[in-house]
Amino acid sequence: MIRVGVIGATGYSGAELVRILSGHPEVELNLLTSRQYSGRRFDSVFPSMAGMIDLVCEDFDADKVCDRADFLFIALPHKIPMKIVPELVNRGKKVVDLSADFRFSDASKYEAFYQPHTAKDLLEKAVYGLCEVYTERIKQAVLIGNPGCYPTSVLLPLIPLLRGNLLDGDSIIADSKSGVSGAGRSTSLTTHFCEANESFKAYKIAGHRHNPEMDELLSLEAGKPTHITFVPHLVPMTRGMLTTIYATLVGNIDMECIRDRLASFYSGRSFIRICPDDRVPDTLHVRGTNFCDIGVRLDKAHKRLILVSAIDNLVKGAAGQAVQNMNLMLGFEETAGLFHVPFPV
Amino acid sequence: MIRVGVIGATGYSGAELVRILSGHPEVELNLLTSRQYSGRRFDSVFPSMAGMIDLVCEDFDADKVCDRADFLFIALPHKIPMKIVPELVNRGKKVVDLSADFRFSDASKYEAFYQPHTAKDLLEKAVYGLCEVYTERIKQAVLIGNPGCYPTSVLLPLIPLLRGNLLDGDSIIADSKSGVSGAGRSTSLTTHFCEANESFKAYKIAGHRHNPEMDELLSLEAGKPTHITFVPHLVPMTRGMLTTIYATLVGNIDMECIRDRLASFYSGRSFIRICPDDRVPDTLHVRGTNFCDIGVRLDKAHKRLILVSAIDNLVKGAAGQAVQNMNLMLGFEETAGLFHVPFPV
Amino acid sequence: MIRVGVIGATGYSGAELVRILSGHPEVELNLLTSRQYSGRRFDSVFPSMAGMIDLVCEDFDADKVCDRADFLFIALPHKIPMKIVPELVNRGKKVVDLSADFRFSDASKYEAFYQPHTAKDLLEKAVYGLCEVYTERIKQAVLIGNPGCYPTSVLLPLIPLLRGNLLDGDSIIADSKSGVSGAGRSTSLTTHFCEANESFKAYKIAGHRHNPEMDELLSLEAGKPTHITFVPHLVPMTRGMLTTIYATLVGNIDMECIRDRLASFYSGRSFIRICPDDRVPDTLHVRGTNFCDIGVRLDKAHKRLILVSAIDNLVKGAAGQAVQNMNLMLGFEETAGLFHVPFPV
Amino acid sequence: MIRVGVIGATGYSGAELVRILSGHPEVELNLLTSRQYSGRRFDSVFPSMAGMIDLVCEDFDADKVCDRADFLFIALPHKIPMKIVPELVNRGKKVVDLSADFRFSDASKYEAFYQPHTAKDLLEKAVYGLCEVYTERIKQAVLIGNPGCYPTSVLLPLIPLLRGNLLDGDSIIADSKSGVSGAGRSTSLTTHFCEANESFKAYKIAGHRHNPEMDELLSLEAGKPTHITFVPHLVPMTRGMLTTIYATLVGNIDMECIRDRLASFYSGRSFIRICPDDRVPDTLHVRGTNFCDIGVRLDKAHKRLILVSAIDNLVKGAAGQAVQNMNLMLGFEETAGLFHVPFPV
Repeated sequence: MIRVGVIGATGYSGAELVRILSGHPEVELNLLTSRQYSGRRFDSVFPSMAGMIDLVCEDFDADKVCDRADFLFIALPHKIPMKIVPELVNRGKKVVDLSADFRFSDASKYEAFYQPHTAKDLLEKAVYGLCEVYTERIKQAVLIGNPGCYPTSVLLPLIPLLRGNLLDGDSIIADSKSGVSGAGRSTSLTTHFCEANESFKAYKIAGHRHNPEMDELLSLEAGKPTHITFVPHLVPMTRGMLTTIYATLVGNIDMECIRDRLASFYSGRSFIRICPDDRVPDTLHVRGTNFCDIGVRLDKAHKRLILVSAIDNLVKGAAGQAVQNMNLMLGFEETAGLFHVPFPV
Repeated sequence: MIRVGVIGATGYSGAELVRILSGHPEVELNLLTSRQYSGRRFDSVFPSMAGMIDLVCEDFDADKVCDRADFLFIALPHKIPMKIVPELVNRGKKVVDLSADFRFSDASKYEAFYQPHTAKDLLEKAVYGLCEVYTERIKQAVLIGNPGCYPTSVLLPLIPLLRGNLLDGDSIIADSKSGVSGAGRSTSLTTHFCEANESFKAYKIAGHRHNPEMDELLSLEAGKPTHITFVPHLVPMTRGMLTTIYATLVGNIDMECIRDRLASFYSGRSFIRICPDDRVPDTLHVRGTNFCDIGVRLDKAHKRLILVSAIDNLVKGAAGQAVQNMNLMLGFEETAGLFHVPFPV
Repeated sequence: MIRVGVIGATGYSGAELVRILSGHPEVELNLLTSRQYSGRRFDSVFPSMAGMIDLVCEDFDADKVCDRADFLFIALPHKIPMKIVPELVNRGKKVVDLSADFRFSDASKYEAFYQPHTAKDLLEKAVYGLCEVYTERIKQAVLIGNPGCYPTSVLLPLIPLLRGNLLDGDSIIADSKSGVSGAGRSTSLTTHFCEANESFKAYKIAGHRHNPEMDELLSLEAGKPTHITFVPHLVPMTRGMLTTIYATLVGNIDMECIRDRLASFYSGRSFIRICPDDRVPDTLHVRGTNFCDIGVRLDKAHKRLILVSAIDNLVKGAAGQAVQNMNLMLGFEETAGLFHVPFPV
Repeated sequence: MIRVGVIGATGYSGAELVRILSGHPEVELNLLTSRQYSGRRFDSVFPSMAGMIDLVCEDFDADKVCDRADFLFIALPHKIPMKIVPELVNRGKKVVDLSADFRFSDASKYEAFYQPHTAKDLLEKAVYGLCEVYTERIKQAVLIGNPGCYPTSVLLPLIPLLRGNLLDGDSIIADSKSGVSGAGRSTSLTTHFCEANESFKAYKIAGHRHNPEMDELLSLEAGKPTHITFVPHLVPMTRGMLTTIYATLVGNIDMECIRDRLASFYSGRSFIRICPDDRVPDTLHVRGTNFCDIGVRLDKAHKRLILVSAIDNLVKGAAGQAVQNMNLMLGFEETAGLFHVPFPV
């Protein structure tokens, strides 16, 4: 059994990690840290888990952490991970970081949208943890920058097609919609029930920090500078993310060809489901799961491809993909701890 | 007092008409028809209105209708209105029809997406009731084809810019999101609470019947055949529609210029609110109102304009605009019966 | 036109007052105060009202307030009103206070559940503003303690029956359910969308501060010390409150008798709707209205009466009743500004 | 591996059975029947399970069923099970029936609220499957009448106290609140999103068919005829049931004593969680689980006990308890297939 720890266990991504890891057959969940709830039993912070998790939240302490865990998940706000991850890696720990701190390979891009980067040398070592795309590199990694929820929903449908030069990179638009849990557990008017309920709105239009993250990866995959137009929206539901992508096809390709390309690219990968013609992705169908459902349609008149992806923002968009990364890094079954039958509703 | 009737009063659009008309200072609501609830008091079908509406639902009968009402709203499913409207118009009644039957000027387009049209001669007489755009023609009209909810949310932001030749017509994409009441009051799995709640999904991707309706109007306004890519989505909320539009700018125009163009086009029109920089349209802000809020953003790298509009699908997207059309046709204040202060939440 | 001001205009009750008052035919809304948003336009805090309210929030200042308004609504947290109301009343202003500060006639009961009372002499002057019950006293009042939302939903069905000695006072249980807006606009985990959505729970079981408020009134009405068992619950919806009351009947009375008693007690009162047999109160039916719907059933085996009441907690449970109180105090139509036709959904 | 079948697999309880059974370590899910969806893949009816369930829905045929399964779950509407269960039992199958058909031991009570009973002789054989209460009898049973969701939430907190003679049976009131999935997957205005959203209401007040079911069990446990007052309500959420019970204590007992009694009665039973003082049951905490959380409070003035229970109506209230019954009947671990870590939100 591998001993694992969750650093920052009481946000929604952290708590979801606790849920998944405590049911994982190959690991022992051994350590939870939380600044806010230090000293309190974890299950008193999340009473749904009462009696299921026998751990007390602790303050972060590098020595203690290294002593008690072999593998670490970092679910802290941007900026803090780059301060603590270097020591953990230096002391031989493997790490999946869920913040943006180790997602960029070009520090200047990170710095343009976040803050000065204080662990630049580690960026080279870090692998972008989009599991179904960078599988082989992930298997060798000691440090993973776990993708953001929006980039996961955008990149999974796009990369196979960009690699195949099937799309005009300048034409890509991603219109994303996220459940409220994506805004985290901190309280604010945005997440106040009465302000989110019966409300649908866009935010950070063409200005969200996941935009440069996607652009960097898409540029890499397209082999040339690529910038997509990205507009996130907030949906009155707890979990789920749906992204509708518009992109102009290059050459004479039909919808079946696109679907085949996606199906063959993701062949054998349990968590990607390419929807047949009579089914469209729906956040309800992936709620609580690590699935990414992808649908394909075409507006023939403009040769405009329409891709729709659905994920659970807290699972495939955060904690689930993080555990999937661990599974790859440690040579476990890729689906270990993650492959439950979904709820019907 | 003008005597008005609502034909098909017990669907959501019909009931919303009843709500608005019964509080309208210039009209007397005199007649409600409903096939399903014939013989029942209207307020037993919608108990929120108990004691407020003293009418009993009746079967449709042209003589009775013409006897008791001077102005008629038709809130019936497509296909039925074209059977009954001709007689009403011939007998001198003014009519606002909320179905698609009188929205198209080209019958062949209607027939391609609906069914054979049996009242083609009336199409010429009918005016497309987008109030803030076709105001003068509406004032002269005897028959209005009341716009669909999606077209209203798409055309209001686009037409001022298309008329000014500011946009590339081939580049337009409309990504719309509607509350569940848009699906009507008929029961189905789609509208079942447990299938809609915590669910966000696209439907009728690039195949919705409002697409040709928008295309016809946009072609007219652009002065050349124009087809937009349109994808509707379903949001787990009762009321509200938000549309995010993407279009490439022609020439060197900035965001302020676009906002100014919209502001001046809609200057003096009470129901259009162009949002300043620090505010984005939100369905919650227009809930229960006849407002259309419009926001403007730009993705500079691609000169791609992003327009966001928010309406209440049952009010500005249906019953409210229908009453606004009546106000224009009968020379009332445009805002009569429609200009209540919105709820804070 | 009477000039009115709202002290504490940016909480939900305050904003609802602004909504109602700005559409009230007899008053001019002239002054809004808000500590948190002082200096900001009100409609930037509640963008639904953009363009409808042309006032800027100000800090509270007694001179300014007395200068600019003749009638004041206080929508501040408990404890602050008793500091500012005495001066307003002394300077000849009429006041409706929405906090608990002037609801109790016995200061010691207030002090047992809140804090020391610093304006005890005003308690005598203050009238408990349950409009349909204390109408005559309200008409003479200069200061109203506006009832809490829970007490409104509990007292309206009970008082007519207690006055008639139809119920055993010791047997009364009130099981109440409130929408989230009842918790106010302050942010907290309780009102976080993800913690309230798909959640139904009781809170402050037999310990809520509205319990002694109800007990004082019921004791008064019953003519002997009366304490009811009261359990509030939180419902995943924005607005609405439903209360289910259980009480044992005294003597041989049937359901019709109870319904008749309620109907005759509230005869001629526009906002009370006694539901017939085939209808049950539903928060959706009173959403956005000042109605209180009341239903009556009987569990014959135990002679146990079951009363169900539904109100909108922000309207009849707060701002609506406050305006109704003003209407009574100033001799306006009781329904002025409050009698809109409800939404069908 | 035991081969199991689900008769009536495409309602919500049936689908939830499929979810649980397909992840159960001791059984092989081998057969699904559905009249409505016969011939269709199960995962096309519930697309969340796409690729996870490789079965096609079939028409019911007793021979086929007996051939292919050793253990059967019946999730059909009342009245149908009593026609098909006798043959299954006669042919040696073990059966858990989720309808009311085998819940009553007194056929006349069933007949008073349902219809004539056509398999009365089986009623004696059938055991009421309230797992934590009738454990030993369940272990010996060949036919289980699986409890209704409301009775489960009412009986689990009450029975330990009634057996201990701690409560006055005539004083018991159960005020229950259920998520919409309790109304099943059939479409109706009641389950229409727009009629259920933002709606909270009571229904079948003191007239619900689960009332006699509870009364029969409580009479048995109390040793004398016992009838409780029962009012169910509908909550705008998908899953979850919360019941608030009021009952007068007999003798001088305090809250700790009650809590201890419950704790000792359910000692060692994994699915019952007695909440400590600082926690109240919340449907969100049991969502998707087989837990029943129970909280205890006291209104001292009236010696009135307040019990609150929370379950997931589709799991502990239906499919989960059904599988738990199977586990007991077949000698598996009681928690097999049912003991996942709950979601944090």
